[in-house]
Amino acid sequence: MIKVKKLKEKTPKSSPKIRPELPGGFRDYGPADAILRGRIIEKIKKTFENFGYDPMETPAVERTEVLTGGEKESQKIIFNIKGSQEKKSDSSLRFDLTVPLARFLAANPEIPKPFKRYQIGQAWRGESPQAGRYREFLQVDIDIVGSSLMEADAEIISVIYQVFKNLGINNFLIKINNRKILNGLPPYAGFPEKKLWDVLRIIDKKNKIGEEAVKKELVKLLKKNPADKINAFLKISGDARTKLLSAREIFGKESIADAGIKELADIARNLNASGVDPKNWEIDFSIARGLGYYTGPVFEAILTGASNLGSVAGGGRYDNLLIPFTGQKIPAVGVSFGVDRILAILDQLKLIKRKQTLTKILILNLSPELKPEYLSFAKTLRDGNINTSIYLGDDKAFQAQLAYAVKKEIPFILLFGDEEKKKNAVKIKNLATKEQREIRKENLLEYFKK
Amino acid sequence: MIKVKKLKEKTPKSSPKIRPELPGGFRDYGPADAILRGRIIEKIKKTFENFGYDPMETPAVERTEVLTGGEKESQKIIFNIKGSQEKKSDSSLRFDLTVPLARFLAANPEIPKPFKRYQIGQAWRGESPQAGRYREFLQVDIDIVGSSLMEADAEIISVIYQVFKNLGINNFLIKINNRKILNGLPPYAGFPEKKLWDVLRIIDKKNKIGEEAVKKELVKLLKKNPADKINAFLKISGDARTKLLSAREIFGKESIADAGIKELADIARNLNASGVDPKNWEIDFSIARGLGYYTGPVFEAILTGASNLGSVAGGGRYDNLLIPFTGQKIPAVGVSFGVDRILAILDQLKLIKRKQTLTKILILNLSPELKPEYLSFAKTLRDGNINTSIYLGDDKAFQAQLAYAVKKEIPFILLFGDEEKKKNAVKIKNLATKEQREIRKENLLEYFKK
Repeated sequence: MIKVKKLKEKTPKSSPKIRPELPGGFRDYGPADAILRGRIIEKIKKTFENFGYDPMETPAVERTEVLTGGEKESQKIIFNIKGSQEKKSDSSLRFDLTVPLARFLAANPEIPKPFKRYQIGQAWRGESPQAGRYREFLQVDIDIVGSSLMEADAEIISVIYQVFKNLGINNFLIKINNRKILNGLPPYAGFPEKKLWDVLRIIDKKNKIGEEAVKKELVKLLKKNPADKINAFLKISGDARTKLLSAREIFGKESIADAGIKELADIARNLNASGVDPKNWEIDFSIARGLGYYTGPVFEAILTGASNLGSVAGGGRYDNLLIPFTGQKIPAVGVSFGVDRILAILDQLKLIKRKQTLTKILILNLSPELKPEYLSFAKTLRDGNINTSIYLGDDKAFQAQLAYAVKKEIPFILLFGDEEKKKNAVKIKNLATKEQREIRKENLLEYFKK
Repeated sequence: MIKVKKLKEKTPKSSPKIRPELPGGFRDYGPADAILRGRIIEKIKKTFENFGYDPMETPAVERTEVLTGGEKESQKIIFNIKGSQEKKSDSSLRFDLTVPLARFLAANPEIPKPFKRYQIGQAWRGESPQAGRYREFLQVDIDIVGSSLMEADAEIISVIYQVFKNLGINNFLIKINNRKILNGLPPYAGFPEKKLWDVLRIIDKKNKIGEEAVKKELVKLLKKNPADKINAFLKISGDARTKLLSAREIFGKESIADAGIKELADIARNLNASGVDPKNWEIDFSIARGLGYYTGPVFEAILTGASNLGSVAGGGRYDNLLIPFTGQKIPAVGVSFGVDRILAILDQLKLIKRKQTLTKILILNLSPELKPEYLSFAKTLRDGNINTSIYLGDDKAFQAQLAYAVKKEIPFILLFGDEEKKKNAVKIKNLATKEQREIRKENLLEYFKK
């Protein structure tokens, strides 16, 4: 074990001095939450591996310059960290897993490309904590680095599709767009390019605030004519093919949007060939995504049927992210899943059942003389892969130990007293059905195996 | 997905500006390392759950006061963190998982006790990075809170035993001692109590620096007589029972050490009844452990046969840890596993084989016309739980794609070209044996299932 520098021995104090509180914006996950999260993460990992993604880990801490790309603007979401032996801080907690991935690949140019990896880890944002907004959150990412093919983008979307399927979620929708199409808006609608970001921020809210509100905000930002033209673009409807044909008609073949339209057509072909159900994806020209680094297709997934809780997965292509480190363009595409948000929605839709414990059986600890027998039952069950606890509290009363099992929602208790010992038997009680069975000692494991 | 505040769109720059380096004391785990670590952690988790421990998570960040217990001394190992909207920092990165556990239980007094949980997560120390010493490390802990019984301490030791067994490691030794015995040293040997910590620091090094060196250091610190008496104590040998009897003889029944001797005898009885092999544990009176908060039994495990790399697991009883928060004594005992150190030693002993990837098969992407077929093969294999990748690089040449599979150490490649299409077959090549087989398309999954 790594040793901590010696602390002074603490002498018991009579009154509590330290509030057992977390800093604002942080939270604990007790066993019930951690069990559920673990189960979901396990399924997601298996899906990633099934598609050929390998795990990878980078540290929580990066050089601040790496995270900000040397730019001042993003520093507001940075948590600086400072060791006590350092004069000043030039390190920060990562705020996503994508920038660290770019840094890793720039530092390890020998890694074969395309590089497909997943990473699951915490990320942190130093913003003031707001209601429902956390400063630490779990980031669950896959990325493909070193492929410029739209097949890669389609694969990422297929993984999103399969993740939800494997989680038992059928009511979801993956919305797909392309930044290149959105880049065609200024010449098409007739507004200055420097206003594009503001326009994107407005239209990206369309699914949240509605068409009318978007219209109003656009008219406020731009003149009426450009706003009308953007609205005509956002009104495009139909299936994927129809939408892309309409977009091409609107922008014209000479538009810079055309490359993006072609890319989406390519993705659509791949999705169809991959068996991705057309019910679960659509082209949505209002999707822009918040991050500046996207350069091509962008996508996000929502759980339909949930009241508006925003997207549960989002990503896109970012071909320029390695440039600050290597000077070279290396194509990349990826997606990030919001596991905590998925959990919140599944909870809201009552699609998940929480378990308080993974323990299957509690062996009551009623008599010190019988402890060797309790330990031997525990060994038998554990060797047979049955998660087993022996009651370790000080209270030797049956009622207290039963109450403990009930409170912890352990499904079974095992009773073994002098009477059972005489009979060479144990009593097993199912706490849900209240059913009690006496079984022979040697049949213990067999009883639980079925 | 949680959105990042908008960054300015990055325009491609021609020369790299940012060094892709980590801060000192931090490291990446590429796929081969992450796969191995994941496999080991998975086995450890299953063992914990098998013994009735449930997962739990606390955030990386705690209030600094919580971590330091209000004391200045430990602040040297603290990493302060500061959000950009905060004037001063009163939060820090956790340096272990035990203090956060105490804080969590003090904040949630309704949780049924005994509380058995495991937690696996990073911890950070703000010390200057030294050779082989990292500022971020994985902490793998189990604890039982709310049991004063030595059965709990024995259970923790049984879990250590079972973890190594389940990892396929047989050459390990768990060394057990009791702080209460060590507290008997000042009256027994005749030195002032305020020198106890210095004495413990010296004798704790016995297994590293040897008996003679300890003797020298003790003579330097104390007078000859006390040093001799401590050495006599450290020379106690024999099996567990003999050692405990000898210790009782040396200290006398009136000594405060006696309670500790009785506790170890109780633990020994429980270990024997649990089927823990006596070859894998021993009483070692030189074990003190570095942390100040231990109050009773302490233990650590080493891998025998490894050149001296220190302990790979360590823990003990800490009955006072909740006092600063609650004013109440709540008995607790736990252990922390050093997974990175276990891995380093297994590596050194050549007991593990690294895998570059979890992907079983790479489908070569030789012709755009055949892409729908590649996707359908991938779907078949993935649905059958075979981890499958389709080559996504730009290079359509067979040789390039083969080289990629070889470099990534993917065991099989699947070839499907016009010739195979005509025959309704696919070619599978095992890259290790170079064996190549042509199999019918419909037998693809079956071939890999066996």
